[in-house]
Amino acid sequence: MTDFSEWFHNILEEAEIIDDRYPVKGMNVWQPQGFKIRKYTLEILRNILDKTHEEVLFPMLIPEDELAKEAIHVKGFEEEVYWITHGGLTELNKKLALRPTSETAMYPMFSLWVRSHTDLPMRFYQIVNTFRYETKHTRPLIRVREITTFKEAHTVHATEEECEEEVQNAVKIYKQFFDMLGIPYMISKRPQWDKFPGAKYTVAFDTILPDGKALQIGTVHNLDQTFAKTFDITYETEEGDHKYVYQTCYGISDRVIASIIGIHGDEKGLCLPPAVAPYQVVIVPIIFKKGAEEVLEFCRNIEAKLKSAGLRVHFDDRDIRAGKKFYEHEMRGVPLRMEIGPRDIENKNAVVFRRDKLEKDTISIESDDFIDEIKSTLSNITHDMREKAWGSFNKHLRDAETVEEAAREIEKNMGIVTFHWCGNEACGKELEEKVRVDILGVRESKSETYKMPLTEITKEEIDLLQEEGAAARECINCGKPSTCRTMIAKTY
Amino acid sequence: MTDFSEWFHNILEEAEIIDDRYPVKGMNVWQPQGFKIRKYTLEILRNILDKTHEEVLFPMLIPEDELAKEAIHVKGFEEEVYWITHGGLTELNKKLALRPTSETAMYPMFSLWVRSHTDLPMRFYQIVNTFRYETKHTRPLIRVREITTFKEAHTVHATEEECEEEVQNAVKIYKQFFDMLGIPYMISKRPQWDKFPGAKYTVAFDTILPDGKALQIGTVHNLDQTFAKTFDITYETEEGDHKYVYQTCYGISDRVIASIIGIHGDEKGLCLPPAVAPYQVVIVPIIFKKGAEEVLEFCRNIEAKLKSAGLRVHFDDRDIRAGKKFYEHEMRGVPLRMEIGPRDIENKNAVVFRRDKLEKDTISIESDDFIDEIKSTLSNITHDMREKAWGSFNKHLRDAETVEEAAREIEKNMGIVTFHWCGNEACGKELEEKVRVDILGVRESKSETYKMPLTEITKEEIDLLQEEGAAARECINCGKPSTCRTMIAKTY
Repeated sequence: MTDFSEWFHNILEEAEIIDDRYPVKGMNVWQPQGFKIRKYTLEILRNILDKTHEEVLFPMLIPEDELAKEAIHVKGFEEEVYWITHGGLTELNKKLALRPTSETAMYPMFSLWVRSHTDLPMRFYQIVNTFRYETKHTRPLIRVREITTFKEAHTVHATEEECEEEVQNAVKIYKQFFDMLGIPYMISKRPQWDKFPGAKYTVAFDTILPDGKALQIGTVHNLDQTFAKTFDITYETEEGDHKYVYQTCYGISDRVIASIIGIHGDEKGLCLPPAVAPYQVVIVPIIFKKGAEEVLEFCRNIEAKLKSAGLRVHFDDRDIRAGKKFYEHEMRGVPLRMEIGPRDIENKNAVVFRRDKLEKDTISIESDDFIDEIKSTLSNITHDMREKAWGSFNKHLRDAETVEEAAREIEKNMGIVTFHWCGNEACGKELEEKVRVDILGVRESKSETYKMPLTEITKEEIDLLQEEGAAARECINCGKPSTCRTMIAKTY
Repeated sequence: MTDFSEWFHNILEEAEIIDDRYPVKGMNVWQPQGFKIRKYTLEILRNILDKTHEEVLFPMLIPEDELAKEAIHVKGFEEEVYWITHGGLTELNKKLALRPTSETAMYPMFSLWVRSHTDLPMRFYQIVNTFRYETKHTRPLIRVREITTFKEAHTVHATEEECEEEVQNAVKIYKQFFDMLGIPYMISKRPQWDKFPGAKYTVAFDTILPDGKALQIGTVHNLDQTFAKTFDITYETEEGDHKYVYQTCYGISDRVIASIIGIHGDEKGLCLPPAVAPYQVVIVPIIFKKGAEEVLEFCRNIEAKLKSAGLRVHFDDRDIRAGKKFYEHEMRGVPLRMEIGPRDIENKNAVVFRRDKLEKDTISIESDDFIDEIKSTLSNITHDMREKAWGSFNKHLRDAETVEEAAREIEKNMGIVTFHWCGNEACGKELEEKVRVDILGVRESKSETYKMPLTEITKEEIDLLQEEGAAARECINCGKPSTCRTMIAKTY
């Protein structure tokens, strides 16, 4: 891919994912093919979340006074909120905001819903559209003004510990989700200046697109008691006291679709993980004048068998050249193509083409065992696509010992560069300036805990980390003690 | 149900369907139980539509100039549209409307998508939220300012005939949908003054709620070439000419959920059709001190068997009185309850309670045949609920020969009254005034065609209808010729 931006723009159009010609900047149309990929992606996410969460749906409009209640929160969003001032020809008494996110829509209700410690924990999620008046350059699925797919989970807990555990739980959920899609990621705790407005801290998932730029694809926020205090969300303890709850929220957006497309795609177009492919298998008949009807009939039979085995199969019996079909289905990313002609029927074989490896194989269709073989091939595709994506991803990860080295690595190879940094904000901003990158944050430690708030490190914290086996080092910029490996990248 | 309004309000709260305490008038929260009913209802609708339609998703905001392009259309909505005037702290150059419906969002894109006669017909649908600044009294699911569930289908055709056929196709789709939910309906062609703004004519589905008032639950609009001309949607014919397309659109809203709740519910609360019930079967163990663990174990086994048969089953093993569980699950409308105690296990029986008939029966659970019996009972419930609903509905339908009789019938029994009316607008409005009702429209004829536009009837049209076997009669108000039976009702 010589120019990823151009490739991405073209494939969205050619594969009929998104039409960006809608007459409002940053707002796009999901076309049928794109909608299906989105649907199957959300199905995976819902299946995971429904085990522990309840799906709900809150109103889209937030009254001005509710949005303004949490001062830090509203400050973080005030430049991005769309405002409704009129209903019909009437000016509204109270302005209404289009939700940029739903804390201030949900939490006044949580205040009514949470009564007793027996109600907790509560875990909700909704998948909705949200709006941000982006002033930066917009790009479909990556930076938009209408986020059409915003999965936001909101949880409520009795204790700080349970709240911390939920952060870990959310991280596990997102790992599972991205793993199923073969999307590689780094997990880090965002610096304080880049956390969610109102959160205690933010843990983020970043992936890397083929141009080497990092893309934030998921965030988990520990909200502590900030919103509980603002919206008066309390519960009665077993002892009859009233205490503020602890909360988390975590989100996934359209960017997950951008990642599926960007990370797995190649010169030929889309390459879709079977789990989200509108068609998992396409059957293309190889037809000669003689015996055409027999081939079509045979293919229909194969189609029926695969369908009843629960696969999404398309039998492409259009009267056009097979080569044109091959081109089209490869461009659209169909994971597996079966080609069946008269000689295959004779030999009780079929040609099977894997989109991910662009390799052909022959399988026997003598018995119905071929169904299991197709299924296991699809599962191999999922596995191999994930491996391949992680392989490319890992090539984009580098360590640096000095600021100059970090700058050189970013300049040369883009991707994510990791080094020791003290955690001080002024030092961090200086670093960002010097290397012209964003600090993503403190890299996930081996123990997978996020105990360390990303501020300047105290002596106690250094001792604690050293106990855990992490060696204290020096910040590459200011030389002060550092125990955390910090990641930087050019970001979307 | 002595007071339907009160009952409806209470059951939404008690069964945790909708929370109407959200701090914006006419905008409500879908709680987990309600969300599930909504989800399964939409699943049915999607399954039907996906056979012939493609699901898409268009942006929610419509630029002022696009909305204003179709003059009649915008006039119909100008008093109901919410306007966005600011993005962040910046005033927008061009106001943005929250979609009240999506014709003006979609059709500029259709103009780009439709090229050739081979592209047609096109059939799309989306399920989205829409907004109307209602000035009337709002009521959850029935009259709201955020319609959270708006299924809108939009189709494009080459000829007028295909467009007419699509209206019939849409009517069939909605019949199938409402039949699966056991919601009775009358179909009528709305009078011209009550059609969709911009349509040639509107066909509507009305049901009757227990208070005897009619509720519009679905509409199908023949848009003819009105929007095609406004948005320049043309196609190239086989001969190379360019022609305007013909269009239809048709919609279903949150009101379908209101109907499910209102029509099937009773004094004990919800009564849900199995197809949309969050739990189709609940298992309640009948526990005594002795052998408690055995009963629980046995129930878990039954639960597992029903689950693997694809049913939505809940085993309620909470440590509270069985009577309290019965009350709760009846109130929530679980179609089928199984009660299993030590004696049942001994006798290899289970007690089965049907929510719709409030009747108990005993079934054998000696072999796994009981699974099929549960399934067939669920299917009987669906059938019997539909029959019962149509029975009540039909009692609300009456004919009238004079204006006085119509007024008396409405006064006494509410419901829908049918009579002969000439089709003249002034006469119709006089009638509405006299009887204090709305004219729903011309009742669906036996041949299920809607050839007659609902205007004053011409001699040719009378002849045509007489050919079709309909006898010309006199309008009960003005005495002019009438061939169409017209329905009136007090409406929501």
